[in-house]
Amino acid sequence: MFTDEYFMKLALQEAEAALEKEEVPVGCIIVSNGRIIARAHNLTETLNDVTAHAEMQAITSAANFLGGKYLQNCTMYVTLEPCVMCCGALNWAQISKMVIGARDAQRGFINKNLKLHPKTEIVTGVLEGECSAIVKQFFKTRR
Amino acid sequence: MFTDEYFMKLALQEAEAALEKEEVPVGCIIVSNGRIIARAHNLTETLNDVTAHAEMQAITSAANFLGGKYLQNCTMYVTLEPCVMCCGALNWAQISKMVIGARDAQRGFINKNLKLHPKTEIVTGVLEGECSAIVKQFFKTRR
Repeated sequence: MFTDEYFMKLALQEAEAALEKEEVPVGCIIVSNGRIIARAHNLTETLNDVTAHAEMQAITSAANFLGGKYLQNCTMYVTLEPCVMCCGALNWAQISKMVIGARDAQRGFINKNLKLHPKTEIVTGVLEGECSAIVKQFFKTRR
Repeated sequence: MFTDEYFMKLALQEAEAALEKEEVPVGCIIVSNGRIIARAHNLTETLNDVTAHAEMQAITSAANFLGGKYLQNCTMYVTLEPCVMCCGALNWAQISKMVIGARDAQRGFINKNLKLHPKTEIVTGVLEGECSAIVKQFFKTRR
């Protein structure tokens, strides 16, 4: 039951919450030992703060929950490939596993030849169609 | 009087405040139209949060002060070259000018072939000796 698709659907719910606030719709969830310890969505416009990406907020929340800054035994499910900033933060956090929905060829870290921590396992393409569609739809309506 | 060295000295005072808390001693200041609108130092250990670099806190503070997420007409003075995470954040913020004290060959963004925003002017090597010494001393006493 608790598959990658299951948790990615919850991350998509977070993306939908961002969409309702007219934010770029990106959501994420952090799971530790089968338990959700953080959920967040992009709030850069609401907070007037470029650092308020979903991943950044979730890293801070999860570390607060765990009482330590390293996200060991933690998996992040994120609807869109992390940017340079979030990649850097995830690297510092040494997160165990990253599950990514849609790729972001232009802003994502992969095409910039950046790497996450050597300990971090990466899975891409989980619910890619849905994760990609929500972002594409957002930018279509904004033009 | 209000030279780059003048503001970098204030950033160094922030780095010293970090050192007193046994944090990696990095400090920064953001100046807008000759006025200091943010000052911060690294708090990753104190807050148990990898995202609590001096630059990240200062970006959030400055945006809050300005009421907008873009740091136009703003200069950041930072004692150590920003990492990948902070480079990504500064890129999103489109900061006008970066004044960097010491280089960070291993963790800094420059050797990773990352760039700040095309609008951002970069100056390096301001009070480099002092900015480098405080970090070196910190790691020496930790070994």
